[in-house]
Amino acid sequence: MIAEGKRVLALCGGVGGAKLALGLQHILAPDQLTVVVNTGDDFDHLGLRICPDLDTVMYTLAGLNDTERGWGLAGETWSGLGALERLGAETWFQLGDQDLATHLVRSQQLANGASLTEVTASLCDRLGVSVNVLPMSDDRVSTQVATDSGELGFQHYFVREQCKPAVTGFRFEGIEQASPQPDLLQLLRGNTLAAIVICPSNPFVSIDPILSVPGVRQALNQSAAPVIAVSPIIAGRAIKGPTAKMMAEMSMPASAEAVAAYYGSLLDGFILDEHDSDQSDGIAARGIEVSTAPTFMKSVQDRIDLAEHVLMFSRTFIQR
Amino acid sequence: MIAEGKRVLALCGGVGGAKLALGLQHILAPDQLTVVVNTGDDFDHLGLRICPDLDTVMYTLAGLNDTERGWGLAGETWSGLGALERLGAETWFQLGDQDLATHLVRSQQLANGASLTEVTASLCDRLGVSVNVLPMSDDRVSTQVATDSGELGFQHYFVREQCKPAVTGFRFEGIEQASPQPDLLQLLRGNTLAAIVICPSNPFVSIDPILSVPGVRQALNQSAAPVIAVSPIIAGRAIKGPTAKMMAEMSMPASAEAVAAYYGSLLDGFILDEHDSDQSDGIAARGIEVSTAPTFMKSVQDRIDLAEHVLMFSRTFIQR
Repeated sequence: MIAEGKRVLALCGGVGGAKLALGLQHILAPDQLTVVVNTGDDFDHLGLRICPDLDTVMYTLAGLNDTERGWGLAGETWSGLGALERLGAETWFQLGDQDLATHLVRSQQLANGASLTEVTASLCDRLGVSVNVLPMSDDRVSTQVATDSGELGFQHYFVREQCKPAVTGFRFEGIEQASPQPDLLQLLRGNTLAAIVICPSNPFVSIDPILSVPGVRQALNQSAAPVIAVSPIIAGRAIKGPTAKMMAEMSMPASAEAVAAYYGSLLDGFILDEHDSDQSDGIAARGIEVSTAPTFMKSVQDRIDLAEHVLMFSRTFIQR
Repeated sequence: MIAEGKRVLALCGGVGGAKLALGLQHILAPDQLTVVVNTGDDFDHLGLRICPDLDTVMYTLAGLNDTERGWGLAGETWSGLGALERLGAETWFQLGDQDLATHLVRSQQLANGASLTEVTASLCDRLGVSVNVLPMSDDRVSTQVATDSGELGFQHYFVREQCKPAVTGFRFEGIEQASPQPDLLQLLRGNTLAAIVICPSNPFVSIDPILSVPGVRQALNQSAAPVIAVSPIIAGRAIKGPTAKMMAEMSMPASAEAVAAYYGSLLDGFILDEHDSDQSDGIAARGIEVSTAPTFMKSVQDRIDLAEHVLMFSRTFIQR
């Protein structure tokens, strides 16, 4: 699908982004795909470092994710959570017994001085993921959600409060001091990239943290590779998660066009769902190339088809 | 069973000791029983603080222990252990999914600055244990087993190596700097104790660590209450664990009498099994009062009966 020696960089958050990353994994050689994952969702819980988006991507690319529940590991059990409840520990974050093993191993390796990049590589290796999965940064960044109930850590907003409080804005704690993951910067500054794909993830809490790591946005702007986003909004709704709700609360139309406008001049191309083709002209008027495709990824074949569409679309851009 | 305002202090290790502690719990009011537990077995594993003897006592007194397997929690599941194996983590220590919750909560509370005494009290409270369960010390003590394969941490000897290396001695790392648990010392120095019971636990790795905490042995010697040990050896064998094997390796006869001789002048009384009544005279010749009883505790009633026997025996001593 892409020229020899070329690579694709995918930026993604959790479930939605991981679906497209899986599609890309199916059609590219392992050394042709680098997936950079949001770590703004990461938090410490019961003394463990938990990286929800990295885990979702890792489990999905390993084929271990639970496709029915939509998150976590297939065949998961919950004995430990029951025991935690009996001991009066916080149980609002659903920790599965198998998932817990990931957090334990990661936390211990981090405590022993390994970087999040090294830990992620080692976990991916053990789970048979050969694609390069990178955290956006090895430094701690913690997404804070400003809401009408005050500021909440992302998982507290997302899981504990089930996205109920109305959002007024976001803050990425620690972002000024964070360095981009070194391989990411090298990739962006090199000349091997065929495409930069912004997966259909939440623009505010999944993609913005990555773009906000100092140096990343600029490097993306300066890259010769086309930057192509896939809309996380289909027919005014997000497939999963609070994207549409957040847009409404921040007085933005919950539309594909509004997402394209939000990314703005960062984008060379935008892929929106067939149902939203009436928004194509508006997006094109912003100087962004538009392509429509079936973006609702229900089956694995849907993920592969969309990934192929993204790469075909990327080849229509004359590299700057 | 004992006079009002009086208390019983039980010193114990894991499974065997916990059985007698359970018997004592059945016949005493909660405020009449203090169980002081060996913490020399404690170790750090996968970043968690694990206290095997404290957990065994706690689970047993809470009625949550697995009586068939003989250790751990009833209804335990092992999903996390499988996931740890998949991730290449050490799995020689059998971590159950429910048990893991205990280690998580304890580790986090310790990391937040709570003492092991406070953590134990809080865990016991949550599990409905109203008897006073105390660690022998709030300071770290780590039992090292000298063997023909070199020195091993206790759990490495006990679980990983399954007690196979021949033992030549023991070392309690950190013991010189350890302080006795404050309530233990206060209890030993006060005048409320009706009896001090050394449970049928391993003398070398369960009871010796407790006795070796600076000040404890002396306080025991000076206490007006009779010190009564129950033999962990029946007919030359230990019910569970490596006591008899250790004795043989250290050129001691694996007998009840050898255990009594090992405790020596610390003891006022010694209870041995009916099968070993031929050893009574030898023990009595050492100036230790002897009583025989059925000490093999198979049923809960056996535990209660033995506990009653211990307390009746204790009343035959004229307090010094």
